[in-house]
Amino acid sequence: MDNISKLKENVAITLPENGLEEKLKQAHQENRKLIIKLGFDPTAPDLHLGHAVVLKKLKQFQDMGHQIVILVGSFTARIGDPTGKNKSRKPLSVADVQHNAETYLNQLSQIIDVEKAEIVFNSDWLDALSFSEVIQLLSKVTVAQLMHRNDFNKRFTENTPIAMHELVYPILQGYDSVKIKADIEMGGTDQLFNCTMGRQLQETFEMNPQIVMCMPLLRGLDGKEKMSKSLNNIIGLTDEPNEMFGKTMSIPDSLISEFLDLTTDFSVEEKKWIDERLEAGENPMNIKKIIAKNIISQYHNPEEAEQAEEFFVNQFQNKNFEEKAFEPVLISEIVAENNAISLLDLCIQLKNGESKSAIRRLIESGAVQINDEKITEPAENIELKKHTKIKIGKRVFFELV
Amino acid sequence: MDNISKLKENVAITLPENGLEEKLKQAHQENRKLIIKLGFDPTAPDLHLGHAVVLKKLKQFQDMGHQIVILVGSFTARIGDPTGKNKSRKPLSVADVQHNAETYLNQLSQIIDVEKAEIVFNSDWLDALSFSEVIQLLSKVTVAQLMHRNDFNKRFTENTPIAMHELVYPILQGYDSVKIKADIEMGGTDQLFNCTMGRQLQETFEMNPQIVMCMPLLRGLDGKEKMSKSLNNIIGLTDEPNEMFGKTMSIPDSLISEFLDLTTDFSVEEKKWIDERLEAGENPMNIKKIIAKNIISQYHNPEEAEQAEEFFVNQFQNKNFEEKAFEPVLISEIVAENNAISLLDLCIQLKNGESKSAIRRLIESGAVQINDEKITEPAENIELKKHTKIKIGKRVFFELV
Repeated sequence: MDNISKLKENVAITLPENGLEEKLKQAHQENRKLIIKLGFDPTAPDLHLGHAVVLKKLKQFQDMGHQIVILVGSFTARIGDPTGKNKSRKPLSVADVQHNAETYLNQLSQIIDVEKAEIVFNSDWLDALSFSEVIQLLSKVTVAQLMHRNDFNKRFTENTPIAMHELVYPILQGYDSVKIKADIEMGGTDQLFNCTMGRQLQETFEMNPQIVMCMPLLRGLDGKEKMSKSLNNIIGLTDEPNEMFGKTMSIPDSLISEFLDLTTDFSVEEKKWIDERLEAGENPMNIKKIIAKNIISQYHNPEEAEQAEEFFVNQFQNKNFEEKAFEPVLISEIVAENNAISLLDLCIQLKNGESKSAIRRLIESGAVQINDEKITEPAENIELKKHTKIKIGKRVFFELV
Repeated sequence: MDNISKLKENVAITLPENGLEEKLKQAHQENRKLIIKLGFDPTAPDLHLGHAVVLKKLKQFQDMGHQIVILVGSFTARIGDPTGKNKSRKPLSVADVQHNAETYLNQLSQIIDVEKAEIVFNSDWLDALSFSEVIQLLSKVTVAQLMHRNDFNKRFTENTPIAMHELVYPILQGYDSVKIKADIEMGGTDQLFNCTMGRQLQETFEMNPQIVMCMPLLRGLDGKEKMSKSLNNIIGLTDEPNEMFGKTMSIPDSLISEFLDLTTDFSVEEKKWIDERLEAGENPMNIKKIIAKNIISQYHNPEEAEQAEEFFVNQFQNKNFEEKAFEPVLISEIVAENNAISLLDLCIQLKNGESKSAIRRLIESGAVQINDEKITEPAENIELKKHTKIKIGKRVFFELV
């Protein structure tokens, strides 16, 4: 898959539609990195799989050499809810903001390279604005534009009060893009409107406007609302493996495809294989196990993923009815050039992180099976064919695809 | 007429309806002056008769011992039109604002006692607001409230852009009332909405909210639009007497009653007499002359008013068809207790400012007539009866009412 296709994968909205190609071309011509902006609200530092959808896209940009800028919304967090009605939005102290930002960056480091990212606090420039500069800024946006935002429009139509400062916040988000000279602003689809303010403000400041890339909103464990801490329907990035496993097993079947697409790091081909299995009547529980293990492998490691599955099966499943959940493995990921590999090397690849001697012991003990056949020596030249099934240990099943 | 009736005369809107009585009672009980606020936009320092409608009401409060606060809107004037679209609203320098304010105060002194008034500049507190304080302030008002303002509503409905900073300005005007602790805010009826913001903000700052008193908007010389410099339909407070006279003579007949009510300082009884004359078929030109002379007497003096009439008649009227414009004079204003006065004293009263010897010379020369009868000596005991007509000199006509 080429870079552009990879960057476009799973993206819900790109604005303007061909903007990404243009920006990449520009960066190439000007021999510079693109500046990719992601805003973060330091009142809610607990990251979950919903956040990860956007963060993994950022990681792709980072892997291609572009510059990630994490914008900490310290200005509004310091103010809290000025009406005082929303008790959960108390004003944060400078120390609170700093602490939350650090917590956030720690979690972020599970996905992106925080060392290479730039971290900025918008209070650095917003606090410094004089009132007359604020007026200048506000004059660049019309009321009608702001009222186009879905929730504003809905509340206005339904006579639900909108306090005036709320109308100002999207303008600030836009101004942040001016200050950091963002080329791309990332967010969930619920951030589309706010992100487009950045385009508009950059234009009034005579800058080349950023493009907006919105990722789909992952629904939470309830399968209904978007994943959100306040709805108590999240899988947190720092959840323990057993918790991650159990929570994933609890999602409704209707959410499997969405989780497969947005939370796993399977390749497009692997995802296709899993989808086919599901459609062919595979027990959805098996698919969820595959997804759960993949998630845990990302945020912990494959070993703990296996242990979590084992724990779950022992704890909650009737062993007699336990079914195998084969995890898909792309042949092309295991061996680039030829279709043969030694069993030892194959197992090492599948259980990345495991030592050679441990794998050798596993094989010698007869714990490795290929297509239901027990293998006791690290045989040369295992042929890599689709649908080859490999079992390693008690509960680790792979299928080559 | 008692104080309350006098203060209520000509007022178009009082909010709340019985607010004035309440405030006066309060001031009396607390043994303090009321603080009466009038805002002034230092971009347009040329005052005209439209402004005077409000200023004369302020003067009444001042005469009763209350505290006038003239608020110079220096903050917004310094910003100008932040969109840059309105070339007539260029940002003003500090010196510009100061200069305009001085010009304004000079004109103001024609109506109110500027020495006794307090003059404040709102940039003194608005410039000092930090952005987060601004956010706090904005949070106290909802978008829907602001969209109730007629012009905002109209523009929003008609898709005419409203820049966001425009929505902020009424909030600032309201905050000014908080800062100066206004008891009453005065303005034209077009300021009703902005003045009510003061009530709301004072309440959120836990103050007793100001009352709003709106005076009618005087229409300009065209008889259609409100008097406004940009419409070139004004009589300026500093216009020369001849200009004032000519302009007043040029108003359409349909405007006579409005001018009589809002621009003259005739008493209610005098106004009634003039209205009756008009209805009885008196040439409207005579009534306009009466109004013109009254206006000039206020902003210049009665002598210049007479000269202006003379100039006008010589310049523009066919002398043969000249008609007498008798000015009404309340008997009760001339003599309080009995109904007799010497001709000399009567003439001195009617031509206030004129010296006794000059009047005596006029009488001796036969230039004074009573009921068409020439008088040459300062007769004792002129009887003050209604409809007594007095002519002094060539063009000064009075009728006792």
